[in-house]
Formats: sequence, structure tokens, C-alpha cells
Amino acid sequence: MVELPAAEVADRSGVNRATVYRWWPTPADLLADAVAFHWDYRIDAPDTGSWEGDVRSAMTEAVALVDEPVERAIMAAMATGRYPEFNAVVTDAWTKSLPQWVGMVERAVDRGEVRPEVDPISVVNLMLAPLIATSLLGRRGTSLQDLEMLIELVYRATATPPER
Amino acid sequence: MVELPAAEVADRSGVNRATVYRWWPTPADLLADAVAFHWDYRIDAPDTGSWEGDVRSAMTEAVALVDEPVERAIMAAMATGRYPEFNAVVTDAWTKSLPQWVGMVERAVDRGEVRPEVDPISVVNLMLAPLIATSLLGRRGTSLQDLEMLIELVYRATATPPER
Repeated sequence: MVELPAAEVADRSGVNRATVYRWWPTPADLLADAVAFHWDYRIDAPDTGSWEGDVRSAMTEAVALVDEPVERAIMAAMATGRYPEFNAVVTDAWTKSLPQWVGMVERAVDRGEVRPEVDPISVVNLMLAPLIATSLLGRRGTSLQDLEMLIELVYRATATPPER
Repeated sequence: MVELPAAEVADRSGVNRATVYRWWPTPADLLADAVAFHWDYRIDAPDTGSWEGDVRSAMTEAVALVDEPVERAIMAAMATGRYPEFNAVVTDAWTKSLPQWVGMVERAVDRGEVRPEVDPISVVNLMLAPLIATSLLGRRGTSLQDLEMLIELVYRATATPPER
């Protein structure tokens, strides 16, 4: 069993220790919940019917998610590298959800909205990483204004050039 | 004085404790060095004369930097939020270096290479965050192939559309 003491998670996340212990009395509870969270609560890749809609939907949901104290604590714990088994569990869950994200990009390529030469996983990285970096290093959320700019940049990065 | 015990840094970074103690016998040494590192060692905004050259140069240097164990340990310590004074010192150093990054984007706008409506700080976030997220959550470097794709995406996101 991976060791991920609740006290550490509390210290690292800034959440009250009593709260963490109430939620997760044992490391097993914590790990189980973290995995369930990553499986069930994390955002699904959207399918709005347009690439612009999908980018907007995914990034808007991601802004709220990565600013959650529990999600931030999970990512901070991963960043420390102190619990390799924990990282493996979370990374594995993410890897299993990747095909639906790749599918989101591929549908947009099929609709002619996204350049076929883009690598879908790099696009997902470009969508989510600026929000994650702000959450982890700035320990704050991304402002609506910054979110709008990032959505526009990701859209431009990927969209098929307009017809001449 | 901020407390940032070397033992913790060792545990979090995966660097040997003895190595950390040899480098930084006291927390004060560690903090001083972290600040110096962020002031002196961190990459300067490039000025290659072209936007494509600047994007490539900055991101290529950043890939190596964010994969350094010490840099990763600094970012992981920031992500935990456990040492607010440490975060403040590093964030302050970064804030002071921001004008040169903004200047890099503004020069490209002046040359007509970058769309004037882009927000320079969001562009810098887009350039560096995917590399940082891979370093922190994947605890690995970005492959050359992924770097090339990300450079291309950032360039497309920001470049002035070709003349019709």
C-alpha cells in the first residue's frame, strides 16, 4: 500500500488536518478517493459539436477543477515525487482517459476545423498546462480575462487557416 | 527567516540528503541560493531578432531548466504552499524579470510578427507552462519531438496571419 499520510496532505494543501482526517481516516481511504476522484470527478472531454466550443468548455471546466484544494493537493503531492506509487496511480488514470481527449481533437480534424498535423496530446497539454501552472506555482485560479486570452491562443494555435 | 529544511527538499526532489546538506548547510543558505538561482541562472528572455527564433530559443532553454532537479524541487516546494515566504521570494523574482519577457513579445509585435491583441504574459505562460506541467506531474523532461510540436503551436497561436 502506498503511504500518503493525511497529515502531509493537510500540510501541503493548506487544508485543516482535522478535515483531512475526517474525510480520509487512513492512507488507503485517501488513495481510494484520489483515484475515484480522478476517474469520476475529473472533467470528461467535451463534445459540443465545434472545436471552438470544445476548447472553451474544456478549459472553463479545467479552471475550476485545478483550483480545487483537493486537486491542487494531489498535483502538489505528485510534484514532490515523494510517493511514486501515488503518481503511478494518478498517471495511469489520466492515461486511461487520454483516448477520449485524443478523440475530441480527432473529431475536430475530421470536421476540418483543426490542422491534421497537430499532435492531439500536445494540444491537450497546451489547453490544460497554463491553468495547472498558475494553480501550482501561483496557488491561485486563472482570471476570466486570462482564460479568454488562453482560449483564443489555443484556438489559433490549432485551427485550420481560413480559406484564401 | 523562512523555514525550508534541506531534508525536506531532499525528500521532495529525490536528491540525496547528504548532497543537499553539502550544498546548503542551513535553510538560509538554501533560500539565498534559490533566490540567486532564480535571479542569475534562470533563462533570460531571448532577443534573436525574429519571433520564431525567440520562441524556439526560450522554449529550448526552458526545457532543460525545468527538468533540473533543483528547479523541480523549488517548483514542487512552491506547489505545496507550505512555505508562503519562499513562494513570495520566488514569485517576486519572477515578477521582476517579467518586463524583459513582455519586451520580447512587444518587439515581435513592433516587427509585425505577432498579433498586437495578444497579452504578452499569457503568451509567456503558454510557452513555459506545458514544459513545467510535464516536469512537475510527469516528473520527466519534454521530448524533442513534443518540444518541436509545442514550439509550432505557440508560434501559430501568436503569429500575424499571412497576407492574403
